[in-house]
Amino acid sequence: MTVEIICVGTELLLGNIVNTNAAYLAGKCADMGLSCYYQSVVGDNAERLTEAIRQAVGRSNIVILSGGLGPTEDDLTKETAAAVMGRELVMNEECKQSIASYFKKRGMEATENNWKQALIPEGALILENHNGTAPGMIIQDGETHVVLLPGPPLELIPMFEESVIPYLNALGPGVILSQTAKLCGISESKAETMIRDLIDAQTNPTIATYAKTGEVHIRVTARAESEKEAKKLIKPVVKEIKTRFGYYIYSTEESVTLEKAVVDLLMANHLSVTCAESCTGGMLSARLINIPGISDAYKCGYVTYSNKAKRRILGVKKGTLQKYGAVSKQTAEEMARGAAFASKADVAVAITGIAGPDGGTEEKPVGLVYIACNVKGKVTVKEFRFSGNRAKIREASTTAALMLMRQCMLEYFSKVTFG
Amino acid sequence: MTVEIICVGTELLLGNIVNTNAAYLAGKCADMGLSCYYQSVVGDNAERLTEAIRQAVGRSNIVILSGGLGPTEDDLTKETAAAVMGRELVMNEECKQSIASYFKKRGMEATENNWKQALIPEGALILENHNGTAPGMIIQDGETHVVLLPGPPLELIPMFEESVIPYLNALGPGVILSQTAKLCGISESKAETMIRDLIDAQTNPTIATYAKTGEVHIRVTARAESEKEAKKLIKPVVKEIKTRFGYYIYSTEESVTLEKAVVDLLMANHLSVTCAESCTGGMLSARLINIPGISDAYKCGYVTYSNKAKRRILGVKKGTLQKYGAVSKQTAEEMARGAAFASKADVAVAITGIAGPDGGTEEKPVGLVYIACNVKGKVTVKEFRFSGNRAKIREASTTAALMLMRQCMLEYFSKVTFG
Repeated sequence: MTVEIICVGTELLLGNIVNTNAAYLAGKCADMGLSCYYQSVVGDNAERLTEAIRQAVGRSNIVILSGGLGPTEDDLTKETAAAVMGRELVMNEECKQSIASYFKKRGMEATENNWKQALIPEGALILENHNGTAPGMIIQDGETHVVLLPGPPLELIPMFEESVIPYLNALGPGVILSQTAKLCGISESKAETMIRDLIDAQTNPTIATYAKTGEVHIRVTARAESEKEAKKLIKPVVKEIKTRFGYYIYSTEESVTLEKAVVDLLMANHLSVTCAESCTGGMLSARLINIPGISDAYKCGYVTYSNKAKRRILGVKKGTLQKYGAVSKQTAEEMARGAAFASKADVAVAITGIAGPDGGTEEKPVGLVYIACNVKGKVTVKEFRFSGNRAKIREASTTAALMLMRQCMLEYFSKVTFG
Repeated sequence: MTVEIICVGTELLLGNIVNTNAAYLAGKCADMGLSCYYQSVVGDNAERLTEAIRQAVGRSNIVILSGGLGPTEDDLTKETAAAVMGRELVMNEECKQSIASYFKKRGMEATENNWKQALIPEGALILENHNGTAPGMIIQDGETHVVLLPGPPLELIPMFEESVIPYLNALGPGVILSQTAKLCGISESKAETMIRDLIDAQTNPTIATYAKTGEVHIRVTARAESEKEAKKLIKPVVKEIKTRFGYYIYSTEESVTLEKAVVDLLMANHLSVTCAESCTGGMLSARLINIPGISDAYKCGYVTYSNKAKRRILGVKKGTLQKYGAVSKQTAEEMARGAAFASKADVAVAITGIAGPDGGTEEKPVGLVYIACNVKGKVTVKEFRFSGNRAKIREASTTAALMLMRQCMLEYFSKVTFG
């Protein structure tokens, strides 16, 4: 089945906001095995919107529209979609009630134009909105399904997950499920080579690789008669992938990010952690601290940007800075040792590098970064050469530090060896 | 004149990447006074791409395509656009030379398929690519202009700014120029009310407001016969806006971000700075350090997440933590005083708050944040109540801290008073 995504909104056409809804919807549809050949953006204009919806229903089975369901005169997605599909708008009492209770809960009064949101195309399926006043809806006509969703991501995403995914899954022959193995410390091309035979041999489940900053994700997607059947198809493939990649996989769970995996490892081993950052200037600490519950492991961290701060706070030797420079293996190691000493943390990570745009030399170019990880006195230092602008180099350094932390903890506590 | 944006790429259709190119191109076209009614995304498929380009040239004057200019078989934007516009592809010697020199510079060999990138539609204007091998191009036919750009933003953006903006500006009756006044510490609705009369009275230049996290941008756009004329139209309006908003405006320059404005103020007053962060965990330091040249002002910073770290590193009193709690006006103030003492910095900023999802109480709910700014011993503390998830609250706190830093420095050194 084919799906097409139409995002409605002048703010998208003016470039005031980035279309994250399209990426979200496209990703979810791909997960469900739906083929998406077109995405488009149109403004709140009846004529152009009519044309866009007509074209979409003419060439795709499922048309997903986002935005333009608000209470104002400008919002005309519902009116236009109903007209194209030949449906009248009728006042829906249930929707009216739920809008009234939404306002009551917040101690506010609904205004006259809010009731416009309770007008529903005849025969449409109503999708509850737990995060706003605009209900979503699905207009079905034979093989065609037009899905209308509110524009704000905080309303669109929960509605899509709660109501639209089950609806679309029920359309197809059976259920689509996917599971993703998330890897770090390996390149996409190497990862693909290592499972080329699996990718080529499989049709259900299918296997696909995706590259992210410093990470590779391998997604296994199965279609089956039931969720149980789909899980049964996925399980041995994910098991085989786990066998081939071992500890390169940091998680097979949707919600686990690399920093979450690192924090989980810290917690599992009852370790405290500290960071001593130069060029990343706090980015590593900030990523760790975005994980709720980190306070059990993270007590303090240091941004030691100047040489003096590296000496005074971390105890890096003057001679080391003079002989090898602030961006060197030796300084990184002393930073990681000094941070552990100053904080009494079990794990200390230090980052020092040249993020540019200035400060690079032929010998030490922009992008040269040293990262040291000290696990209970055992220090590992790695050299990296990143490319891109200042922001990119700093982001890549932060991700590399998370990877090194994970690797060092696994080597220390689980006696794992990385290739 | 109307413009339409077509982004080509399977990774967009699969939702693997967010379409930032569309937002960038749309924003720039809006700045130039071009009306954009459609954006679309199609994959690397000859039939669907042909259909999309045909439809676009049929309804818009300018069609901008991004992506699909690479060296592989999959990349067929150029071939398809040339076919739709009835042009042959011919080998361009200059392009061939520049591809050869691109590879030579990097000590690499061009492969056979790289020469495909030197094939240019007959009569097309070639746009140099200083950041990659794929040249851009413009095919003109009467009133229709088809612009082909490479997909990677690091190649697309410089090419658009260097070559496409001047080309498009030359098409219109005269020149479009815009200037943006960037404000902080004021709400969008208040800002709009304060210039409602200007917005209503003006047609050239036009005035529009945009809200960003904690900021408001006011964009003034003029159309005139020449750049000089356009500047002359913009100047008095920007001057009037400056008069009305005074120090709420942190910059009227395109390239200046809020953190850049803060760093500039530090530099101008020869001040050193430090940060003591709890819930933001390094985000404020990280934003400051993203400004090149910050090393003159920023020496060190502290992430003091635990109470113990607040006491040990910053000297916050045990009694203060016990009596008022870690998230309090009093603790924020002692953190800012202690950070200045420990680092000897002139300006010290401290952030302590409840980012959630847990840890909130009725009295101190999730989103409660205290920020203290210490300028040479004079400490200002502000209370904030932010909403959203953990990441949102931390981002809003970081922006609020930058605003408070700016305000406190201006009050201290320029004797400015904020309302």
